Amino acid sequence: MSANAAVTGPEQLATVLDAAGPALRGLIERTERRLEEIATAYGPELTRHSASTLTAGGKRLRPMLLFICAGDADSVDLVRAAAAVELLHTATLVHDDVLDRAALRRGRPTVFSSGGRGAATATGDLLFSRAFAELTATGDNEAVRALAFASSALARGELIQREDAWKPDVTRERYLERCELKTARLFEAACRLGALLGTPGPRAADALGAFGSRIGVAFQIFDDVLDVSGPVDRTGKPRGTDLLDGTITLPLILARRRDPTLRQLAVDSPQSAEDVCDRIAATGALDDARKEAMRHVAAGKDELAALDLNGRQRRALDLVADGVVERYS
Amino acid sequence: MSANAAVTGPEQLATVLDAAGPALRGLIERTERRLEEIATAYGPELTRHSASTLTAGGKRLRPMLLFICAGDADSVDLVRAAAAVELLHTATLVHDDVLDRAALRRGRPTVFSSGGRGAATATGDLLFSRAFAELTATGDNEAVRALAFASSALARGELIQREDAWKPDVTRERYLERCELKTARLFEAACRLGALLGTPGPRAADALGAFGSRIGVAFQIFDDVLDVSGPVDRTGKPRGTDLLDGTITLPLILARRRDPTLRQLAVDSPQSAEDVCDRIAATGALDDARKEAMRHVAAGKDELAALDLNGRQRRALDLVADGVVERYS
Repeated sequence: MSANAAVTGPEQLATVLDAAGPALRGLIERTERRLEEIATAYGPELTRHSASTLTAGGKRLRPMLLFICAGDADSVDLVRAAAAVELLHTATLVHDDVLDRAALRRGRPTVFSSGGRGAATATGDLLFSRAFAELTATGDNEAVRALAFASSALARGELIQREDAWKPDVTRERYLERCELKTARLFEAACRLGALLGTPGPRAADALGAFGSRIGVAFQIFDDVLDVSGPVDRTGKPRGTDLLDGTITLPLILARRRDPTLRQLAVDSPQSAEDVCDRIAATGALDDARKEAMRHVAAGKDELAALDLNGRQRRALDLVADGVVERYS
Repeated sequence: MSANAAVTGPEQLATVLDAAGPALRGLIERTERRLEEIATAYGPELTRHSASTLTAGGKRLRPMLLFICAGDADSVDLVRAAAAVELLHTATLVHDDVLDRAALRRGRPTVFSSGGRGAATATGDLLFSRAFAELTATGDNEAVRALAFASSALARGELIQREDAWKPDVTRERYLERCELKTARLFEAACRLGALLGTPGPRAADALGAFGSRIGVAFQIFDDVLDVSGPVDRTGKPRGTDLLDGTITLPLILARRRDPTLRQLAVDSPQSAEDVCDRIAATGALDDARKEAMRHVAAGKDELAALDLNGRQRRALDLVADGVVERYS
């Protein structure tokens, strides 16, 4: 349930970039440069630690959604907003890595592994702060409010995830609530910020936000499916890491209905986690979970129906939406 | 260097409250209620964890400064700003407690000890987010900017503190920079927010902010003196906890100049920490450190000179300033 282990394939990203026109590529590059500026502007400590996170790449899916939702707009404020969303996202990753004692992220040593718990916790806090500072500089109060809303949700989602760890009775509804908080709200905020600061304007913010939210839930479900299904050479991590963390995700919740022996689990080694993954897959639960994700994608696209979007914008949003469910399938 | 172990005595707090008039007491009570509302409005997880932090009291020194700086103003936005400052402060305490593996805070179990690392990290993140959400609700962009500035500084101060741990060559200047970042900026923000949202207005924000910053540095130096001097029955913690953490503070920096044997330390037990405290005290460094703090207090008061404050406001600010250096002396 890390929402990050899996990356949208580069081919598909390129397709989105092409469909959205050359402006998107330019905006993404400016966001990268802005993140680099921020990474080096707050003392040597952050500079050192952020190299392994903030400027280490990642697919920049949230900035991309933000820019596409902004339509034909192009402004410093948009780039700031995209940087803010990515800063917040990275802050949560840095803290997650402390809690998970993760050694690698995006193929590089985590702040936790290179700097220790203290440095990583403080680095995450600093990135949180810079996210708000960056967005505040746009002067758009509604935008800052949207980020604060998402940020609280992320933290609450994390709390719920820790709370629910190892519990045998996590329901589908509870799981979806967690996806909503931990993943969807930031996707929602990205789309909402794009609307607020871009061509669509505040009136389109709710619909574009709802689109983002649905795509975010679908993204998380697929991420959780990939944790069970692999393949390892594409996800870059062993199967069943969620199981080892005690994180109960939709595939297991659905599989338990069909195979009651999965209700009592003893996952205490990578091998036993892989075995449970095989047992989950054998129930057919992965297909059901994929279908659930696709329902969210469809519902997300429905949110766009009533909006007055230009053809290129609509095509790009459709591509991102499809990309979320198509990766690795 | 926790900036919190020592509390300004209740008698003295009462003096400030009396000098400022009954309105201050009412505002502080409203802040307490607002914090309670926030603590119970974001799910049962936060409610449970926040009882041991957010609503566990504390001296509310930063809200008090904020309200006094606001002059005769009284508004929902002021209470929101005070709550925001306290939320941010509490967020850093919760994260500090994780890093220090602290069992108790303000006489109650920490979130870390009752909920574990994961819950405490997420709770801190949630409090961070709520701080910004709360202040954003005032609609004052300049205020949000001030909080973001302080919040980044806090995290950077924490980074520097971890970075400098156990280093034998931490200078007085480096120590003061850390105080500035880790403590003074939030005091400054509290005063600045009071000015911005209160009677003095934006034109007085720089001077009141500078006052707050100086008081914050003095507060931190005195806190660090108390860690060496005790008495334990008033600070509520053993002497030398900073030494045990490897945190180099002004008393040791000054003492090393007089007693070179203090340059090689082997602090590995509470007893050895106490012994080093005695050796630091024997050099006279504690008095020098107190004098340094008092210089900051005097400089802080100087910042107020040119401002057009009413008598009650000036008296209350003087009392807070004096209170910072008078506690336990």
